[in-house]
Amino acid sequence: MIPAGAIPLDDRGLLLGDGLFETLLAVDGVVPHLAAHLDRMTASSDVLGLPFDRGDAERAIREASPAEGRFAIRLTLTAGSGGRGLDRPAAPVLRLFAAAAPSAVVTTPASAIIATTRRNEGSPASRLKTLSYLDNVLARAEAKAAGADEAVMLNNRGELACAGAANLFWVAGGRLFTPRLDCGVLAGITRGRLMALHDVEAVAVGPEVLDNAEAVLLTNSLIGVRPVSRLGSRAFAEHPLVARLQAQLA
Amino acid sequence: MIPAGAIPLDDRGLLLGDGLFETLLAVDGVVPHLAAHLDRMTASSDVLGLPFDRGDAERAIREASPAEGRFAIRLTLTAGSGGRGLDRPAAPVLRLFAAAAPSAVVTTPASAIIATTRRNEGSPASRLKTLSYLDNVLARAEAKAAGADEAVMLNNRGELACAGAANLFWVAGGRLFTPRLDCGVLAGITRGRLMALHDVEAVAVGPEVLDNAEAVLLTNSLIGVRPVSRLGSRAFAEHPLVARLQAQLA
Repeated sequence: MIPAGAIPLDDRGLLLGDGLFETLLAVDGVVPHLAAHLDRMTASSDVLGLPFDRGDAERAIREASPAEGRFAIRLTLTAGSGGRGLDRPAAPVLRLFAAAAPSAVVTTPASAIIATTRRNEGSPASRLKTLSYLDNVLARAEAKAAGADEAVMLNNRGELACAGAANLFWVAGGRLFTPRLDCGVLAGITRGRLMALHDVEAVAVGPEVLDNAEAVLLTNSLIGVRPVSRLGSRAFAEHPLVARLQAQLA
Repeated sequence: MIPAGAIPLDDRGLLLGDGLFETLLAVDGVVPHLAAHLDRMTASSDVLGLPFDRGDAERAIREASPAEGRFAIRLTLTAGSGGRGLDRPAAPVLRLFAAAAPSAVVTTPASAIIATTRRNEGSPASRLKTLSYLDNVLARAEAKAAGADEAVMLNNRGELACAGAANLFWVAGGRLFTPRLDCGVLAGITRGRLMALHDVEAVAVGPEVLDNAEAVLLTNSLIGVRPVSRLGSRAFAEHPLVARLQAQLA
């Protein structure tokens, strides 16, 4: 069901964060990695036990994508209306909608801090893009309050997980590393593309590894690859491997 | 701002779970612990950095409370409309609404399981009733799939935290215990009332302590005190202290 402009007050996405989203890049009406996003939302809705309709989602994305220009498409899937309390109705009727917002190419590196708000590695939701995204909102707010662009989040074991709205990679000893999914990490589309192109070791490690990193970078579907120029008090110079990844994954 | 029947698609409560809720009991138009709920939402909105209007919330609750009968009042506060992405607008205009649903007195004990989905003790949101409640939805779904009424949630350290929609207490050696707030626990109104009436020790302990418990009980604003008759394979008999608490906190 595609709502026309508004959502009823009994929607479980609104009341409980019961639902999913995807953020896709659309350039001149073309969504470059549409199938990968739809695959992920299909798998994620299986985890949540929601009857996702891939065809409806694809139509909503295509209809929301303007014919010209570079846009972020936000696809939102809610568990639909429900009665009071946590339990879903026996046969939920989902709501699905997509919206476009202009998305400029990001050419500047990011400054980052390590947030105090943690990722919940003990919930399957930490591996999904869900409507319960408040921890990431809080982490990002910490970054903004510190004058930084983005927050690096640890999980409750103190391991590196991700950024507020990006996956995290770093270069050490000339090699690429990224947090393992079981650290509470979304299997990002750009993360997957980078790992298909390069030898990347997925690891469960604390933030002290970044003290010796040669470069830190962020990835998501809108920014592609974005270098981190500063993490807390540590500055990072430009790095040839990051520049190469930026070009490859633009 | 009180929305009339629907929420715009750019609401941050809907898109990101950025907001709060309260569940209050109203009996014949009277909300017994209204001030405590408003105090908690005031404190919680401070944590989230949202400009909460206590007077508006009180009015919304009173208007939603039917003159006769026993009702659950759900008060929802969202961070309002925002642009794309995690960052809030400079001056968010919150949305606030309340709805009533009939709420029968619960006279039966609850069966429970220990859920695999964990509470995120590393986020301030784990001490608040936020619109990002998917972990609790998933834990409750585990309980229902196992034929149980409610889920007991551990945090990522493996410590007892709470139930899907209730605080947790147990009796051991004739004494009352409950998880500490820093285990990822909401400071429930009924939890607070119980702790004001009785000597309760707030502890950070694993679920193995329940193996030797004489009774386990759940509290929230709608059920008051509800005994647990079964937790996993362990059955609990009726307990005089629990019966007394039920009467005291009805």
